[in-house]
Amino acid sequence: MLTALTTDLYQLTMAQVYYRRGLHERPAQFDHFFRSYPDYGSHQAGYCVAAGLEAFVGFVADTAFTDDDIAYLSSLKGRSGSALFAADFLRWLRSMSFTDGITIEAVLEGRVVHANAPMTVVTGPLATAQILETALLNQINYATLIATKASRMVDSARGRPVLEFGLRRGATGAGDVGARAALIGGAEFTSNVSAARDAEVEPKGTHAHSLVQAMMALGEGERGAFQAYADVYPDDCVLLVDTIDTLESGVPNAIEVFEDLRSKGHEPVGIRLDSGDLAYLAVRSARMLDDAGFEGASIVLSGGLDEMSIWQILTQIDREAARYGLDPVALVDRLTFGVGTSLITSEGDPALDGVYKLVAISDGSAWQPAIKISENPMKVPNPGRKALHRLYDNRGIATADVMSLEGEVADDPMVLRHPIEATLLRSVSPDSLSGREVLLEVVVDEGDVRAEFPGVDELRKRRERDLDRLDEGVRRLVNPHIYHVSLSERLWDLKQALVASPS
Amino acid sequence: MLTALTTDLYQLTMAQVYYRRGLHERPAQFDHFFRSYPDYGSHQAGYCVAAGLEAFVGFVADTAFTDDDIAYLSSLKGRSGSALFAADFLRWLRSMSFTDGITIEAVLEGRVVHANAPMTVVTGPLATAQILETALLNQINYATLIATKASRMVDSARGRPVLEFGLRRGATGAGDVGARAALIGGAEFTSNVSAARDAEVEPKGTHAHSLVQAMMALGEGERGAFQAYADVYPDDCVLLVDTIDTLESGVPNAIEVFEDLRSKGHEPVGIRLDSGDLAYLAVRSARMLDDAGFEGASIVLSGGLDEMSIWQILTQIDREAARYGLDPVALVDRLTFGVGTSLITSEGDPALDGVYKLVAISDGSAWQPAIKISENPMKVPNPGRKALHRLYDNRGIATADVMSLEGEVADDPMVLRHPIEATLLRSVSPDSLSGREVLLEVVVDEGDVRAEFPGVDELRKRRERDLDRLDEGVRRLVNPHIYHVSLSERLWDLKQALVASPS
Repeated sequence: MLTALTTDLYQLTMAQVYYRRGLHERPAQFDHFFRSYPDYGSHQAGYCVAAGLEAFVGFVADTAFTDDDIAYLSSLKGRSGSALFAADFLRWLRSMSFTDGITIEAVLEGRVVHANAPMTVVTGPLATAQILETALLNQINYATLIATKASRMVDSARGRPVLEFGLRRGATGAGDVGARAALIGGAEFTSNVSAARDAEVEPKGTHAHSLVQAMMALGEGERGAFQAYADVYPDDCVLLVDTIDTLESGVPNAIEVFEDLRSKGHEPVGIRLDSGDLAYLAVRSARMLDDAGFEGASIVLSGGLDEMSIWQILTQIDREAARYGLDPVALVDRLTFGVGTSLITSEGDPALDGVYKLVAISDGSAWQPAIKISENPMKVPNPGRKALHRLYDNRGIATADVMSLEGEVADDPMVLRHPIEATLLRSVSPDSLSGREVLLEVVVDEGDVRAEFPGVDELRKRRERDLDRLDEGVRRLVNPHIYHVSLSERLWDLKQALVASPS
Repeated sequence: MLTALTTDLYQLTMAQVYYRRGLHERPAQFDHFFRSYPDYGSHQAGYCVAAGLEAFVGFVADTAFTDDDIAYLSSLKGRSGSALFAADFLRWLRSMSFTDGITIEAVLEGRVVHANAPMTVVTGPLATAQILETALLNQINYATLIATKASRMVDSARGRPVLEFGLRRGATGAGDVGARAALIGGAEFTSNVSAARDAEVEPKGTHAHSLVQAMMALGEGERGAFQAYADVYPDDCVLLVDTIDTLESGVPNAIEVFEDLRSKGHEPVGIRLDSGDLAYLAVRSARMLDDAGFEGASIVLSGGLDEMSIWQILTQIDREAARYGLDPVALVDRLTFGVGTSLITSEGDPALDGVYKLVAISDGSAWQPAIKISENPMKVPNPGRKALHRLYDNRGIATADVMSLEGEVADDPMVLRHPIEATLLRSVSPDSLSGREVLLEVVVDEGDVRAEFPGVDELRKRRERDLDRLDEGVRRLVNPHIYHVSLSERLWDLKQALVASPS
């Protein structure tokens, strides 16, 4: 989908500078991480779910500058009218492969990831690793953003299925990536046929208002529309009941059709509500369905849903169901949530602020840590080649992600430093831990793709396992507890030394 | 980019119902329109800029269900285990073309468009036109959203160039579409090489912090990094000056390199500021550049910009420049604005609420208007086959977009009805108008692509012409005046009759 020219021009102008200086194949390391969790305004994420790695590794393995690409680049002119890119540099660009000497370590897709800890580490020739920046960020930032949003919705939905159907409102061409990310984040289905095929899940969907409108305009009414649908899908009959009036027309007409189906030996599946007070209408519709003998009929809710409105709907049902003689738990067990716009766009915070920063470069014989000084201390990257571990406490709950220097042996007790606040540190004794897990795995080793990329089902399980080991306070939808991402004492010392004397 | 399976499953399940009922080739009309202008929270759009039509028409002309697509669809099972789609329906799907009998009228790309007036009208066989919904919305909603956001930024930037560089933060695979839409909306350049090639504009970009970091880690410092860049691009030298400290290090180092360039007969281009108080730093940097004899050096501002921060920066420069002995107008004339995240994601409102509604269907001999009743009156579509005109007042300013019945002759005076509020109407005499323009043009005529799709330059001119004819109150960034989108008296009467008796 992406090509070698799916990049920012400055990657190529910088690469030419490195080439001209003979630095283009100098080993360098870039860390990819996001600086802050998505903040949706009235609610905030306390964790993210990694996604997009398989696509990025596929890009690295399969993409190259083509003759056409090179011809285009050679046509670009600077202000003086001379060629922007010289012929020798373009020959190198044509000859290079994105896998040449490239090693990629990453936290695997589906895993919970945290702000300011590396998600992806790219090591290799300076120019190549630099050019990879845009493709990496374009592929991992968005997928992680959407997997995270989906994870919150699924968490909010108390285990009931979440159905992704944002294709019409997502960015053009991003629908399949967005749907796959939603599935990784825990969505159970998607309406997007292409994405469902690729992810090997069933696509889902029934009918829209237009079916009812068409039959109404042709004189068959809502009842006729429902009947036409039921005739074709007698065992998969979900009817959209809000075209005219949900309780006065839609549900009664649906019940008539359901009775007809049952008389013919078929069991109707349920109804969909797409407008109005969804909690109230779910309760009232459930009551009507129950009274007609369709206690098993499911109720799909859709229309502007996100994690907060799902939470609100379930809370309202908890309170309101009993008034109509319904068990709220049983009612919730009949629900499915269809989410569109807010999921595919990560409404409230439509971009993950993932960045890709040079952290080390070889001087020809040894790695030199690199740093960027910023007026904003949180924007100072953590320098050098690092290890990343997740510590689990004696309850088996993740308590910190810790960056340390490559090859560093953990102190006893370990001192965990806040990345920038000198006074914030804690001491952790090995006795208080149940595990210390290496988070970064080698997925490309000097150009060889090492990782196997499992299907969506396995990625969903990874997310579930990590969520089970996440503090409830970090999981909560609003004002989550801030998970500790820490530096080892030695990494802290290196960072301070570089900040004091950057060049 | 999109395939025939880039669709929601329900389009296909509905199509099969129509097929089974013999209605699949029944003429139908769907209107595409957005219900509300983007609302970014603290600021709101008063108009949108149409984009995405060329891509959609390309999809219609070039896409079909392939054998692989049909094989996949034939593999889908319902709950009973039998095939979801029957063989005869799939044969029809394989044999149909998206152009068969399809006519598309649309407001052309680059034009100003308004809420609740049709942007795109698709007429043709019911099943075909239904299936086109998802592709249309996916392609036109996003492009229009981004063209609109770009237009606001360009308007805010007082004619100074806006450079799009959001590829890393946009949705995966949507970067080229987003960049093209930004260009249609008035952005002058993009950093996205692929998008620039396709749109036939120059890609732009210089270097990132990583160049400075790499050279610092190798002992050459910021000055060495700047020198390395200037050596390769002596006539295109824009230096990013905020890696260490903008005023203490970056600008002085840049000036040294600029002096060196000038001594060798080259004229430096300028600097880029990417962090900190951009207005203050622009003023201080301009003062330093002027004092060093680089009055012509341009200043690129970037880092979290949107239309509001551009406005704020220019306002602050207006006030602050004189304190440093600078003419604010001359300083603003040196600026370029680089915008990333907020443009490519339409931050604040990441989706256009464009919908595609059945408005008419043939009963076999005559068109029947279709309506959907909704609890929200603004969600009741305007029924039937309609004309759409833009009225210009005697100043040449657009005063209303008016929907009327097909073939209706305008009354004198015309009564313009608010779409839902019975008490809101105005009377317009032909004397008070300078023009009445047909907005919808036939771009596909019974399957023949009629439209020529001009390049981005021409689309930008269309936008400029329309903005020149837009009321300043409608253009303003915050709390814009609501442009009138009206119904003719006869269309109003039809809508009332259908609402009263929908089926």
